[in-house]
Amino acid sequence: MLLARVAGTVVASRKEPRLDGLTFLLLEQLDIDNKGTGGYVVAADAVGAGVGEVVMYASGSSARQTEYTFERPCDAVVMAIVDSWEVGGDDRYTK
Amino acid sequence: MLLARVAGTVVASRKEPRLDGLTFLLLEQLDIDNKGTGGYVVAADAVGAGVGEVVMYASGSSARQTEYTFERPCDAVVMAIVDSWEVGGDDRYTK
Amino acid sequence: MLLARVAGTVVASRKEPRLDGLTFLLLEQLDIDNKGTGGYVVAADAVGAGVGEVVMYASGSSARQTEYTFERPCDAVVMAIVDSWEVGGDDRYTK
Amino acid sequence: MLLARVAGTVVASRKEPRLDGLTFLLLEQLDIDNKGTGGYVVAADAVGAGVGEVVMYASGSSARQTEYTFERPCDAVVMAIVDSWEVGGDDRYTK
Amino acid sequence: MLLARVAGTVVASRKEPRLDGLTFLLLEQLDIDNKGTGGYVVAADAVGAGVGEVVMYASGSSARQTEYTFERPCDAVVMAIVDSWEVGGDDRYTK
Repeated sequence: MLLARVAGTVVASRKEPRLDGLTFLLLEQLDIDNKGTGGYVVAADAVGAGVGEVVMYASGSSARQTEYTFERPCDAVVMAIVDSWEVGGDDRYTK
Repeated sequence: MLLARVAGTVVASRKEPRLDGLTFLLLEQLDIDNKGTGGYVVAADAVGAGVGEVVMYASGSSARQTEYTFERPCDAVVMAIVDSWEVGGDDRYTK
Repeated sequence: MLLARVAGTVVASRKEPRLDGLTFLLLEQLDIDNKGTGGYVVAADAVGAGVGEVVMYASGSSARQTEYTFERPCDAVVMAIVDSWEVGGDDRYTK
Repeated sequence: MLLARVAGTVVASRKEPRLDGLTFLLLEQLDIDNKGTGGYVVAADAVGAGVGEVVMYASGSSARQTEYTFERPCDAVVMAIVDSWEVGGDDRYTK
Repeated sequence: MLLARVAGTVVASRKEPRLDGLTFLLLEQLDIDNKGTGGYVVAADAVGAGVGEVVMYASGSSARQTEYTFERPCDAVVMAIVDSWEVGGDDRYTK
């Protein structure tokens, strides 16, 4: 999984029918110090994350292992909202 | 998923039989500001996207989760045409 | 999928038994202008491609979705020989 | 698999229900000389690794091939604690 | 698949039970001219490769398509020992 901040949302009305009902979030990847790396990905939202929140997302076939994304053509899913992480005993991020 | 612009099409008459009937699009990857990154990928088209349109595509095994690509040797699929996206409340792309 | 030119062949007599009978091609990845990127990959050949030909290959689990590679430890397959591609109406490659 | 050092832990109370009970470790990737590469990943912990330990982790669908992670939306798992590795007969890391 | 030289071995006594019996090789990735790229990966050994040998390895779910690695949390496998490869008719590597 990777850490990311929810930067915004993507709207797509014309899409593969199996995607109906999914919310697509635009994620900015974060490094271990909670700074943006410049990389981004679009992920389905399985946890109701809001813009600005820090999340974890899973990629590849693992992104289809939620009830929300099962058997859908979706390769990234937000599967957790992050409360905090620490490195060597020091908090690097707290919600 | 990643954002991309349909740059063109790829024609391949001699191919694995399971690929018959697929349309292959040449996609230029986009960054969060709707600028090309220089990266590209060839994807099957599950939504009838035209050259110049902005789309989302899924990669890996998720690319086979459409009726169109099911059990085919295809590792990328255009699964949505993008209407718009916003970052921090500002539109970065509108169709 | 990605575009590539068949640069050569790889010979391996001692291998996992399930690989018997596969031909391994050394592929040089191409950019959208038909120039080599410096990247390469070894792929099984499902279409009878020859050295110098321009092909498309699929990676990951999708590489096992041909009769030739089914249930084999193979993560890349040449699944089409490319006739041409165009970008913005201009041919960038024609066989 | 890749080599990594356990840098810390990630706490996420609001998450996809199938993730309940998993411990998430923040891993710093290591090169062949046991130095950090600057890359990181968050992985589920299937072996009880502690902060500071050197581990191996598996990515993608293989990350779901433990009893701990089976059918969960998890794309990286710590599957071994490393005792040592050697290159050309010289130890590069010993626990 | 990618080409690599077996650089050494990794020892891990505490690991996921399904990994018992696997040998882990440290691989240095090779470019088309048989030079190291600086990249490495740890792979299970399905063919009895020795240190210094040039091999091919498969990644992702394809790495589980050997009897040796089936249903194990392993994302890379050495599936062949390379005899030779050629580029444009010239040998670039011969065992």
